Amino acid sequence: KLTELMEPLHAADIADLLEQINSYDRARLIRLYDREFDGEILSELEESVREEVLGILSPQVLAEAVRELDSDDVVDLVEDLEEDQQDAILNALDESDRLAVQQALSYPEGSAGRLMQREVVMAPEHWNVGQAIDHLRGSENLPDQFYHIILVDPRLHPIGNVTLGRLMAARRDVLLADLTEDMFRTIPVDQDEEDVAYAFNQYHLISAAVVDDEGRLVGQITIDDAMIVLDEEHEEDILRLAGVGESSLADRVVDTVKGRFPWLAVNLVTAILASMVISQFDVVIAQFVALAVLMPIVASMGGNAGTQSLTVAVRAIATRDLTGSNVWRVIRREVLVGLANGVFFAVAMGIIGLIWFNSFGLALVIGAAMVINLVVAGLAGTVIPVLLDKFGVDPALASGAFVTTVTDVVGFFAFLGFAALYLL
Amino acid sequence: KLTELMEPLHAADIADLLEQINSYDRARLIRLYDREFDGEILSELEESVREEVLGILSPQVLAEAVRELDSDDVVDLVEDLEEDQQDAILNALDESDRLAVQQALSYPEGSAGRLMQREVVMAPEHWNVGQAIDHLRGSENLPDQFYHIILVDPRLHPIGNVTLGRLMAARRDVLLADLTEDMFRTIPVDQDEEDVAYAFNQYHLISAAVVDDEGRLVGQITIDDAMIVLDEEHEEDILRLAGVGESSLADRVVDTVKGRFPWLAVNLVTAILASMVISQFDVVIAQFVALAVLMPIVASMGGNAGTQSLTVAVRAIATRDLTGSNVWRVIRREVLVGLANGVFFAVAMGIIGLIWFNSFGLALVIGAAMVINLVVAGLAGTVIPVLLDKFGVDPALASGAFVTTVTDVVGFFAFLGFAALYLL
Ligand SMILES: [Mg+2]
Ligand SMILES: [Mg+2]
Ligand SMILES: [Mg+2]
Ligand SMILES: [Mg+2]
Ligand SMILES: [Mg+2]
Ligand SMILES: [Mg+2]
Ligand SMILES: [Mg+2]
Ligand SMILES: [Mg+2]
Ligand SMILES: [Mg+2]
Ligand SMILES: [Mg+2]
Ligand SMILES: [Mg+2]
Ligand SMILES: [Mg+2]
Ligand SMILES: [Mg+2]
Repeated sequence: KLTELMEPLHAADIADLLEQINSYDRARLIRLYDREFDGEILSELEESVREEVLGILSPQVLAEAVRELDSDDVVDLVEDLEEDQQDAILNALDESDRLAVQQALSYPEGSAGRLMQREVVMAPEHWNVGQAIDHLRGSENLPDQFYHIILVDPRLHPIGNVTLGRLMAARRDVLLADLTEDMFRTIPVDQDEEDVAYAFNQYHLISAAVVDDEGRLVGQITIDDAMIVLDEEHEEDILRLAGVGESSLADRVVDTVKGRFPWLAVNLVTAILASMVISQFDVVIAQFVALAVLMPIVASMGGNAGTQSLTVAVRAIATRDLTGSNVWRVIRREVLVGLANGVFFAVAMGIIGLIWFNSFGLALVIGAAMVINLVVAGLAGTVIPVLLDKFGVDPALASGAFVTTVTDVVGFFAFLGFAALYLL
Repeated sequence: KLTELMEPLHAADIADLLEQINSYDRARLIRLYDREFDGEILSELEESVREEVLGILSPQVLAEAVRELDSDDVVDLVEDLEEDQQDAILNALDESDRLAVQQALSYPEGSAGRLMQREVVMAPEHWNVGQAIDHLRGSENLPDQFYHIILVDPRLHPIGNVTLGRLMAARRDVLLADLTEDMFRTIPVDQDEEDVAYAFNQYHLISAAVVDDEGRLVGQITIDDAMIVLDEEHEEDILRLAGVGESSLADRVVDTVKGRFPWLAVNLVTAILASMVISQFDVVIAQFVALAVLMPIVASMGGNAGTQSLTVAVRAIATRDLTGSNVWRVIRREVLVGLANGVFFAVAMGIIGLIWFNSFGLALVIGAAMVINLVVAGLAGTVIPVLLDKFGVDPALASGAFVTTVTDVVGFFAFLGFAALYLL
């Protein structure tokens, strides 16, 4: 009954279903259809749930499940496992698959070497269409999905791609070398997967040959895997910007607490820093309680404007649209935008302050502080991520803490400072 | 000289270069090589710069540039243009391309119909491999890139995909119907492009047949175009979360000011709301200035914790990992996480407050407010985006304002309220 219900579902959907139910139901469900388990489901599961499921499956079922997978999917499956779980899976593979997986694991984590599949279809550069077609017909073990034949020279250097479409449409005596695509890019095996995803997205690649230090063909990466990386990099950026580490909905409370804690701790420190600025002005505040009422407004507007600028900058750095050649223009723009919005909200808030507290001085003070804080927000929101990126720190990870510290400190200092000068 | 320098660059890189220089240099550069202009570059340019470039190119050069493009790229190019610019481009096309583009434009913006290409390679379901290959050999106008042959029944309903790899490897007398892939999904022509990108990413599709209301094949979408949509949807989410509308680095100051303004205005209103809460307690603050010093800490910690929860929720809604079946478990988890971190930071902040102001009462008050605010942050950070999504509002767009309003108001009210009760 259950198998009937699950049968028409794609492995990715079954994986999602397993992720969404609780641990207890998950274990029951898996034991229910433990006779065989689709390896693809394992591939699709997110890490924490995957480890749980691996612990439940019997060794034979696991071995069976893993044997169906492409070598690149096995790599993705085992790379995050403990050594003993890793060995159990590796031992289930055939000799040649195991070697392929171990080879891939020898490349750094997050590199093209981890992402690529070793299965490629290649042909010597001097072949013609007929030879290639006969070769394909005669091959036993073609990959499930392939889109290009990679032409290689005698030393196995890839020199061009021929799409299957062109191959099919050409006469048998045409040379493959005359059918290659205009654009041909190879990917170094140690390139960061983020750069791989960028190249696929920027150049609309469908598959790309991966080469070793000597430029020899060692495998290929296909766009479906690059798309997954692009999606993961986006997730990383959006979560890091919010101060959340790697996380998943299926994480337990303890893990989630641990994941959220560091950023909150950083925020506590910076908030205390801002409080120390406020405490310098306790005399003024005691005299004009209106200052305590209004001061969060200045800080909050600055924090928001800073977050706007920094998010635009972090995204532009990720898409490589913010570079050395336009950074000064972008900084100038952000400062001008801060100035313009600063003046507008200074006027708005000045009027509100005047009506609320009936003090012209207070209105001037909050207006001046607003302009300064929004200009600083635009400046800090752009300069800080750019500098972090320069020093090799992920701007998505650290910019938020720095920028809001700056806008809090500047906001409170400017507002209370002006108040101390002009209202006392 | 210039042409020599530009020659080896990919159209996407030339487009990036044009985006990064200023308007004046851009106009000069384009006039310099105005004799011919690669249509692909136009395709790669972002909207604001593209309109500028379209204004500079002479009608003949533009016509020439556009004629080289695939129909789906022309659609992407013209859909955002003013009517007169649109007509100029449409008139440059051949009759059949023009009809294809006009047909695509008749589908709603952001739908599969706008994304698809009309060029497909199809075959009747009863053909064998030999017939298909001979047909391909005989075709004049095969698409540049294609990966599947779509099998159709006599009424043009797509019934399966045959990959070119399988086609090549099979004997001539094998029926195409025996070579179809296990998984076959069609996309309704009016489906939202966001759902299209989701399907490609979830099911690792390479290309998918697009069908009309009656299930007839009208075109296909390829993964490279789906990857672009995925990237755009991510950009939309990350920018909306930060309160930035559609924006690009090449936007002018005025447009950027306009883009940033609305969210800052919303934030001003919510900040004033929080200030009104503070002003209810002006008597207590005047007596204990330490309250003014410490109160931003409680609000800031709540705002951060809320942003963490809401970002996780917004991302999970976008990836469809947060659904009706696990929403209660996620809410429960977020509340528990808020409680745990709340208790921890309550103790930490209590100790700091005790040392700093030497008041046990103050330490208790800030600790209690901290726990309450972090629990509320976890709750609001999850419930608000879920509810917005339920009511058809993009949670990325509006959650931030609601959540930080809640954490500010609750933070100030709890902290100052407890202070009024216990310290006075
Ligand atoms: Mg999933
Ligand atoms: Mg795969
Ligand atoms: Mg991995
Ligand atoms: Mg990475
Ligand atoms: Mg793969
Ligand atoms: Mg990154
Ligand atoms: Mg780009
Ligand atoms: Mg670009
Ligand atoms: Mg478009
Ligand atoms: Mg959309
Ligand atoms: Mg296309
Ligand atoms: Mg969206
Ligand atoms: Mg998913």
